[in-house]
Amino acid sequence: MSESPDLQAQRAFQQQLTDAGLLVRSGVAGVYARNGVFESIVDGLTRMIGVEGAWQQAEVLRFPPVFARKHYERLDHLANFPNLLGSVHGFEGGDAQHRAMLDDMVAHGDWARHLSPSETMLAPAACYPLYPGAQGVLPEGGRTVDLESFVYRHEPSDDPARMQAFRMREFVRMGTAEQARQHRDDWIERIKGMLESLLLPVEAVVANDPFFGRGGKVMKASQREQDLKYELVVPICSEEHPTAVASCNCHLDHFGARFDIRTVHGDVAHTACVGFGLERITLALLRIHGLSPASWPLAVRKALRLD
Amino acid sequence: MSESPDLQAQRAFQQQLTDAGLLVRSGVAGVYARNGVFESIVDGLTRMIGVEGAWQQAEVLRFPPVFARKHYERLDHLANFPNLLGSVHGFEGGDAQHRAMLDDMVAHGDWARHLSPSETMLAPAACYPLYPGAQGVLPEGGRTVDLESFVYRHEPSDDPARMQAFRMREFVRMGTAEQARQHRDDWIERIKGMLESLLLPVEAVVANDPFFGRGGKVMKASQREQDLKYELVVPICSEEHPTAVASCNCHLDHFGARFDIRTVHGDVAHTACVGFGLERITLALLRIHGLSPASWPLAVRKALRLD
Repeated sequence: MSESPDLQAQRAFQQQLTDAGLLVRSGVAGVYARNGVFESIVDGLTRMIGVEGAWQQAEVLRFPPVFARKHYERLDHLANFPNLLGSVHGFEGGDAQHRAMLDDMVAHGDWARHLSPSETMLAPAACYPLYPGAQGVLPEGGRTVDLESFVYRHEPSDDPARMQAFRMREFVRMGTAEQARQHRDDWIERIKGMLESLLLPVEAVVANDPFFGRGGKVMKASQREQDLKYELVVPICSEEHPTAVASCNCHLDHFGARFDIRTVHGDVAHTACVGFGLERITLALLRIHGLSPASWPLAVRKALRLD
Repeated sequence: MSESPDLQAQRAFQQQLTDAGLLVRSGVAGVYARNGVFESIVDGLTRMIGVEGAWQQAEVLRFPPVFARKHYERLDHLANFPNLLGSVHGFEGGDAQHRAMLDDMVAHGDWARHLSPSETMLAPAACYPLYPGAQGVLPEGGRTVDLESFVYRHEPSDDPARMQAFRMREFVRMGTAEQARQHRDDWIERIKGMLESLLLPVEAVVANDPFFGRGGKVMKASQREQDLKYELVVPICSEEHPTAVASCNCHLDHFGARFDIRTVHGDVAHTACVGFGLERITLALLRIHGLSPASWPLAVRKALRLD
């Protein structure tokens, strides 16, 4: 297996990042604080992406990190990616149960059995909270939405590019089949150009989502056959296994049918999303141009307004 | 009870905000998407707060919305505010349990019983993830830290100023008892001045945290007697019950002792935090200056660079 040299490289990069103070460990694998330098790069990226997408005149929507459990349950995430979910549980008891919970914490640590599922889940992608609320007839010309939020994926890892909580910027298109596919295809080239202007060695490759379990194999193959998902990949800790820093996805009429989203002509809407992993692009820049943005190439500094 | 007119005013304001598209309902009370206009105000505020606090030359740290469960368990939040917590649960099973979980979802909806507590909790305040990592000896002069993150409190409400997920900016001081109290006291006046420059009718009042249950009454009284917490309040939906939009808190040596944080002289460190509720200040501005920032007083627009 080629896992081992990759893992070594990931741990070495993680150590460099924490030594430099760019990331601060939190006691949980894949959960870090970011320092001001790291954040200035993220700020530069989000500004640059906004400029790149300005021609779309997209609706800006910012969702918090949690969204409705009842919407989650209709999104197929539980079938496809159960291992990655984050379910928010809370305490609904009174004084007596509170005392019992505190006693359990002291006695054996298993206090969480007193909790029950709340009305929310952590959002696994910036666009998941959007579709359930988009039910109904789209305006003439469809909708283009600009999203950014913290998303959660339960996959503890020492790879600094595989965080449990990270920010995802997205542009979502909802409209006809042609509008959706056009959006996806256009953005593959735009993102490639954008990342090349940051002097990153980027490639666009056909990809699949990490569908769960034995049944997942069929889903992966089908997604690839249908040419639905492209990833923009950059080598961060491995030349052989470059990291996806952005992805461009056609959902066909999956969300349209599920949430009854329709075009003005009455057809089931198609949707597509393009997503930027803000931490991953930042890590790619730090890996390739060095840990000190002050000494990055001038073109990169200018593009990100790092001054 | 005076609850009823307040609740009416809160629901009316909520309706105005959603009609104007500033907030978008999500199917869960207290969870909203924000639109671009709302976000431009938040951006203006966070820039303004950064300028106001620049003299401190604070370390910038940005934590994600989740933090270590093992740290949460040492923070007394479970004793004091169990009703507000958010515990992140995940799925650790294989194919067979996955099928059972999906069957349960279809049959009766109770699929979450297949989940177990993960390594993380949702952060209830921006500064909670900081203290556990601050263990050890502080530098000469102590530390001042600039934080901002999404925080979570499980209190579903129709009051738009009582969200379940919202952003909190904080400046935390760790050092001697005098340094901590000075930080807290200075910021009461600074925040008052800042909010007055935004033409908000603000008052500083002694306050207490919403400690849980019967035992909580004693805690509330003790916190007030010791003069530990001040809130900056602005009337949003009620003149009689104004809303806290910022708070300034002395923790004495609570976190210092709990997490073994020490001054260079070997004393247990004292800590203090000042926090800005970014959504609440935004809502106060929208309530008092109107729902259209384009027609706000020029001084306010300039201070927030809304142009």
